[in-house]
Amino acid sequence: MLSVEEYHQHFVTSLKDYAVTKEPKNLYQPIHYILNLGGKRLRPVLTLMAADIFNSHYKEALNAALSIEVFHNFSLVHDDIMDEAPLRRGQLTVHEKWDINTGILSGDAMLIMAYKLFENYPSQTFRALIQLFSKTALEVCEGQQYDIDFETRDNVTIPEYLKMIEYKTAVLVGTSLKMGAIVANASIEDQNGIYEFGKNLGIAFQLQDDYLDAFGDPKTFGKQIGGDIIENKKTYLYLKALEFSNDTDQLALRELFASNPEDLSTKVKTAKQHFESSGATEATLKAIEHYTNKSFMILETLQISEEKKQLLKTFGTQLMYRAV
Amino acid sequence: MLSVEEYHQHFVTSLKDYAVTKEPKNLYQPIHYILNLGGKRLRPVLTLMAADIFNSHYKEALNAALSIEVFHNFSLVHDDIMDEAPLRRGQLTVHEKWDINTGILSGDAMLIMAYKLFENYPSQTFRALIQLFSKTALEVCEGQQYDIDFETRDNVTIPEYLKMIEYKTAVLVGTSLKMGAIVANASIEDQNGIYEFGKNLGIAFQLQDDYLDAFGDPKTFGKQIGGDIIENKKTYLYLKALEFSNDTDQLALRELFASNPEDLSTKVKTAKQHFESSGATEATLKAIEHYTNKSFMILETLQISEEKKQLLKTFGTQLMYRAV
Repeated sequence: MLSVEEYHQHFVTSLKDYAVTKEPKNLYQPIHYILNLGGKRLRPVLTLMAADIFNSHYKEALNAALSIEVFHNFSLVHDDIMDEAPLRRGQLTVHEKWDINTGILSGDAMLIMAYKLFENYPSQTFRALIQLFSKTALEVCEGQQYDIDFETRDNVTIPEYLKMIEYKTAVLVGTSLKMGAIVANASIEDQNGIYEFGKNLGIAFQLQDDYLDAFGDPKTFGKQIGGDIIENKKTYLYLKALEFSNDTDQLALRELFASNPEDLSTKVKTAKQHFESSGATEATLKAIEHYTNKSFMILETLQISEEKKQLLKTFGTQLMYRAV
Repeated sequence: MLSVEEYHQHFVTSLKDYAVTKEPKNLYQPIHYILNLGGKRLRPVLTLMAADIFNSHYKEALNAALSIEVFHNFSLVHDDIMDEAPLRRGQLTVHEKWDINTGILSGDAMLIMAYKLFENYPSQTFRALIQLFSKTALEVCEGQQYDIDFETRDNVTIPEYLKMIEYKTAVLVGTSLKMGAIVANASIEDQNGIYEFGKNLGIAFQLQDDYLDAFGDPKTFGKQIGGDIIENKKTYLYLKALEFSNDTDQLALRELFASNPEDLSTKVKTAKQHFESSGATEATLKAIEHYTNKSFMILETLQISEEKKQLLKTFGTQLMYRAV
């Protein structure tokens, strides 16, 4: 097993070789651009780690890891158009640097390129990887649709919200790990176990993201603190605060999340007070702990050494207790 | 072998069963809508025909035919956004009936659904179909990019134009036929032969489309006559007219295709006079004949009965000498 930094390094080297600009340039340059914007490369690192964990070699999983990263970036390019986001990792988004049509078409090409990367595997592995990939990719689209639908609904339930983040974010974490396990020919039980480990960790990760968006340290959190509040996003914090509030407080919170005041810092401060006093903050931290623990319990069922379990646990803990 | 109408009918029945609306509704309703707008269903009919031609049964090819049609409609939904087209087959386009974001996301889901349809095939067939599909899908994206690039270039060559229509239109015709051949376990030579037959017929088909757009019968041609001229599209007719003209006529034609006059009928009439007098019309009809004949010559190399060759030839001829 290598360190996370080493997997990251090997992946980035492999990505450099992959993302060369072909003709037509106006199609492939934006793809080269978005793939080289950097980022944690969390998902492909998980794929490489999983291949080593199940006694293959990380090199065998490089194409699957590339596919996961190309797919993830495809979804970022299209989501950024839908969200009208001007920036991604501090740089212009593809549709801002070029235009919306370029974002649509280059994104489409990336989705197909992600599939093509599996062609490097023997037929049984190819089939298993592609079927998992298609299932996950469709769930990611469904998760994005639920997220859009929730913007205009005022009766979103906690189970609905959890399903949305499971589809939009968590299944791809589980899939990243399972792909490494598939490449390594792990048993079906271990493949499904590592998927569930990743999925639950992914849910915890997204809930942590909701929490940090409001309560993170402005010095270390990459985005503007309170961004979700300013955009009236119905996060876990918000939905729990509604659930725990009396009619008066509910109404006040709903009105706050229907407003776009000039004084944003007061809006953020008021919302955070609601989250704290209602018990929503505490409930969110508890939910993060719940899904993290659930993932660690699933880890125990895997047929791998204690050392490897510890490694995945450490990685999970670092992710969960990150400040960024 | 069945008649074209019978294949069409069987395909539409199968499509009805396939295109059911699932949750989330806002993702799947637009997919149901576009898949049920009708159309010639030319590509999936070719897939079914090819399966019968190579001694399988058309039913075996229904999933591949559905995949081709779902992919074709994915590309229509995204292209209509890029072209800002309000109508498709006389009905509102997806992004007009819903919005651009819905068009992007539902299109993405359709591309993945097209891949999923291959899961019904055994592993070797699955692999062959998916590899062909990915290659073709990426070429279609590249063709669309070339088409966009050509809008702002004034030095497009005939070989470049032919490559664009090959990628954007013709490869999918070849692929539709080859998929039927793959499902039927035809020899590699026959698979490649039927692909080349379809590709060349597809090029002829698109050139015919260019021709009919200017010289078709307004009573039977589905679209407005002269639409390409009004939109200043650099079709085969236009590029050939430039090639055959002296400097004065070239300049006049370029200026005409840089204009957006109120009097559209005079613009169309003037452009058509240029096409006729330069010899571009004649050259276009010759090119259509050339690619049709090329496809018929390739047909002769296939290891199938004369009767089946005749059937494909009749179908090709009907396509070529259509008024619509």
